[in-house]
Amino acid sequence: MKATVLHAPGDVRFEDVAEPQILKPTDAIIRLAATCICGSDLWPFRGLQPLDEPMHMGHEYCGTVIEVGSAVTSVRPGQFVVGSFVLSDNTCPHCRHGFQSSCEQREFMTGAQAPYARVPLADGTLVALDSQPDDDLIPSLLAVSDVLGTGWYAADAARVQPGSTVAVVGDGAVGIMGVLAAKQMGAERIIAMSRHKSRQDLALEYGATDIVTERGAEGVARIRELTGHVGADSVLECVGTDESMHQAIDCARPGGSIGFVGVPHGVELAGDYLFFAQKNLLGGPAPVRRFMPHLLDLVLSRKINPGKVFDLSLPLEDVAEGYRAMDERRAIKTLLRV
Amino acid sequence: MKATVLHAPGDVRFEDVAEPQILKPTDAIIRLAATCICGSDLWPFRGLQPLDEPMHMGHEYCGTVIEVGSAVTSVRPGQFVVGSFVLSDNTCPHCRHGFQSSCEQREFMTGAQAPYARVPLADGTLVALDSQPDDDLIPSLLAVSDVLGTGWYAADAARVQPGSTVAVVGDGAVGIMGVLAAKQMGAERIIAMSRHKSRQDLALEYGATDIVTERGAEGVARIRELTGHVGADSVLECVGTDESMHQAIDCARPGGSIGFVGVPHGVELAGDYLFFAQKNLLGGPAPVRRFMPHLLDLVLSRKINPGKVFDLSLPLEDVAEGYRAMDERRAIKTLLRV
Repeated sequence: MKATVLHAPGDVRFEDVAEPQILKPTDAIIRLAATCICGSDLWPFRGLQPLDEPMHMGHEYCGTVIEVGSAVTSVRPGQFVVGSFVLSDNTCPHCRHGFQSSCEQREFMTGAQAPYARVPLADGTLVALDSQPDDDLIPSLLAVSDVLGTGWYAADAARVQPGSTVAVVGDGAVGIMGVLAAKQMGAERIIAMSRHKSRQDLALEYGATDIVTERGAEGVARIRELTGHVGADSVLECVGTDESMHQAIDCARPGGSIGFVGVPHGVELAGDYLFFAQKNLLGGPAPVRRFMPHLLDLVLSRKINPGKVFDLSLPLEDVAEGYRAMDERRAIKTLLRV
Repeated sequence: MKATVLHAPGDVRFEDVAEPQILKPTDAIIRLAATCICGSDLWPFRGLQPLDEPMHMGHEYCGTVIEVGSAVTSVRPGQFVVGSFVLSDNTCPHCRHGFQSSCEQREFMTGAQAPYARVPLADGTLVALDSQPDDDLIPSLLAVSDVLGTGWYAADAARVQPGSTVAVVGDGAVGIMGVLAAKQMGAERIIAMSRHKSRQDLALEYGATDIVTERGAEGVARIRELTGHVGADSVLECVGTDESMHQAIDCARPGGSIGFVGVPHGVELAGDYLFFAQKNLLGGPAPVRRFMPHLLDLVLSRKINPGKVFDLSLPLEDVAEGYRAMDERRAIKTLLRV
């Protein structure tokens, strides 16, 4: 089959690779209904993350099971499944504690920008739907796999509650999903920090009540102004740079909470800064598996429509153009039709 | 009057200073019933914190009001009062949110290693008892002011709950009070990390169930061993060095919580380390005022006896010896009789 391989920064190829096979009895093979490009795929694409060898790209997926290993009991061929970008056994103490993204057997999904993919730890990772979903729901089901699950975790880690005032740092797809999550959790005020019209519009559609275009110290000052000089109860950090992380912390009120889900690149936090800031911090790879039953229910009952975050849809073979469109911010997030 | 002034590292003098006076209408003057030396006083005493000019030492206090400013309405001369080491108005949004240690008008108490002291923001800071306390309760009432309140905050920030497994990093007075707090909050298992017999004994008396003498990576390995390779639900960081902070984070389970109250000196946390650790962090100067009504009730009803943390009692004039005894770890904490 042909699939997506990153050979060097900027060099994404759709090329012949071996078909995935069952390697362990706990594996499943799925035929993807759709896949997509993640903001985090841009780190190696931009050369901001080391790349030792060609990398099989893609970790967001949903589709139909075509084969399972001998130990798999919870899914079977023919079922439509969605899974987290973090593979987990869902039975270890960390999984049972709701932190499947720190599973003792944790692996990260790879090779999903392809027609077929191998999903390790299938029993713990995949959730099967009761029936085949309507085609128009595929983008939203795909979103659950990472971008929605990660935005949701940012809001959960930032302890968004009914009535909360929330600030979202980062207007990428995850930040926009964070807006949706905060809205679902009952936030009264949701301030999206964005300077791009199309992203502002989508954030507003998903429930943002205010837009702040300033960044850094100016952005912090604007948030303080908008919150009666108190700061936000909850801040979702959805970028991962040193500037955005400090901006997020500075936007929260003392005793407030920051959920950080942007994979940190070059972030350094001084202990005395954190001490006198006096704010709750929790971040990490999202334990999407914890949220999946609820998120799938919201999607299947059409209470939310996270799939709108895909503003560009391309055939899988045009994946390289999808990377370029996101890199150049011409697209928020690219869906790849299989 | 004579009071305690630090002139240079190691040079603590008990010498003539001006008597405190009402400087603002919100001030009160108290006559101290007792005062004490804090672990944090050792940072400048040891030359690990810059000292630009002679420093009037002491921030833990309880005693009798002798004068109040014209705007003070909640306490009056003759009343016995206890107050937090952080002075707060207790009316601003941060105070009302329970973070009085981030009060908009925050000041830090100084000059309390003295017979008399000025307490700014008296209405927001001081809590008056209904009557004069028994003499034997004075050490425990004094402990509420900082050392108990700070240990309590460490446990609160680390989200100790009934049944929790707790690790305490640091066997200074605050760490030992953290053990007491965790016990009061219903922790099932409390692991004190200490290599000093007298501190181990006191921790055990206050409710520690296990003692770990190892530090650093070995200490972390021992905590993991004791917790079935899961990690502690809650970790109280009561030191403030880079090593102790990393040790505390590494001892917690994914999704667990670290309450850090040791004033950080040289602590640097890498963003990707925090991200993949995936643990809750909250620290800062303790909002003791939030906990005071409950803590005073526990002390006055003799349900807890935090005053036992003072294992050395000296007349105030011997304050320099008190510093030396703590610096050389001959004493856990020194009470100064006024």
